[in-house]
Amino acid sequence: MNLVLHNFFRSSTSFRVRAALNLKGLDYAYVPYALRKGEQRSASHLALNPQGLVPTLETPRGPLAQSLAIIEWLDETNPSPPLLPADPWERARVRSLAQAVALDIHPVNNLRVLRYVAETLGADEEAVAGWFRHWVAEAFAPLEQRLSREPETGTFCHGEMPGLADLCLAGQVINNRRFSISLADYPTIQRIFDACMALPSFEAAAPNNQPDAE
Amino acid sequence: MNLVLHNFFRSSTSFRVRAALNLKGLDYAYVPYALRKGEQRSASHLALNPQGLVPTLETPRGPLAQSLAIIEWLDETNPSPPLLPADPWERARVRSLAQAVALDIHPVNNLRVLRYVAETLGADEEAVAGWFRHWVAEAFAPLEQRLSREPETGTFCHGEMPGLADLCLAGQVINNRRFSISLADYPTIQRIFDACMALPSFEAAAPNNQPDAE
Repeated sequence: MNLVLHNFFRSSTSFRVRAALNLKGLDYAYVPYALRKGEQRSASHLALNPQGLVPTLETPRGPLAQSLAIIEWLDETNPSPPLLPADPWERARVRSLAQAVALDIHPVNNLRVLRYVAETLGADEEAVAGWFRHWVAEAFAPLEQRLSREPETGTFCHGEMPGLADLCLAGQVINNRRFSISLADYPTIQRIFDACMALPSFEAAAPNNQPDAE
Repeated sequence: MNLVLHNFFRSSTSFRVRAALNLKGLDYAYVPYALRKGEQRSASHLALNPQGLVPTLETPRGPLAQSLAIIEWLDETNPSPPLLPADPWERARVRSLAQAVALDIHPVNNLRVLRYVAETLGADEEAVAGWFRHWVAEAFAPLEQRLSREPETGTFCHGEMPGLADLCLAGQVINNRRFSISLADYPTIQRIFDACMALPSFEAAAPNNQPDAE
């Protein structure tokens, strides 16, 4: 399958897709966009993804935007190894864990929002860091509670195989480093993150291992 | 099936789930939470959903959080009528449209974030309204472009049956009214919204038709 990933090394949504492609054993071409320079809003990328956001995956069927939609499509078209369990209730659990990160942290804490907070609302560096840390804590505390108490948690967020929730969680933990967020209060998240990053598929997807890493 | 929906009349994520339940013909008990009073963070609701966010759906298998996870679970366990197409590529299209609203507008514009913008960052009423309108425009402009140009668009976001993308889109359009956002620049979104709200399942889910409506 001919796949081209339009992305940015430090983007945590790009990380999710890179790690998913790696887990599926799918090769892809890597096209980097320097987000701080606005390259993702170039005419050529807007033609693929009118939102002008990364990641966008070019596929034999056409371009596809939105990291969660991309990952579910990869999972449905390349079922092995699965990124979601087979049972609907277990799938729902994994999606709800993934979405606690993908909807309640990342959209509020990504570069374009942080920029608006700083440039349009006039927040200083400390207030921007406070904003980022606030939304991480709001979601990580209940996530730690769920992961530590629910019996379905295993080596990974759900059992013994990495999946959709782990992709989102690991990407967020890496992103947190920019604001020096400790995982001391989140031992289960730390344990799962360590298990993820011990996998070659996750490690190869890490920001520092991308061609556009600074 | 015994279902209890913990929600709030004005919440657009609650709207999505109410309309999905109606489309599936599923009865449910309605438990309201006054978000402005923080009722969603009561001990009884936190026991069901440690994030303390609405909606939460109590099911025979247990409580389930996150509106998109809830809707996909409803769709997998009650397949008729479907809220997603059968073909993986079409499913991906619908999810990517849904997520342009559910990830790129709602998480940045919900009550808890608007409050932080106002109370912690000190934005005045005009700046808060500007914030809300900015994130709607950032996503609605490319969404209008996609919906107006892509041949898969029909009476609804994807073909002739309402689905996941319509649930998200209609909930957002209703939410926009609080900030008097006109759809004049988004004629396709307006047309799809009108088609949605002409359906009894969507109309019955509207904020004004809920028991806790003010």
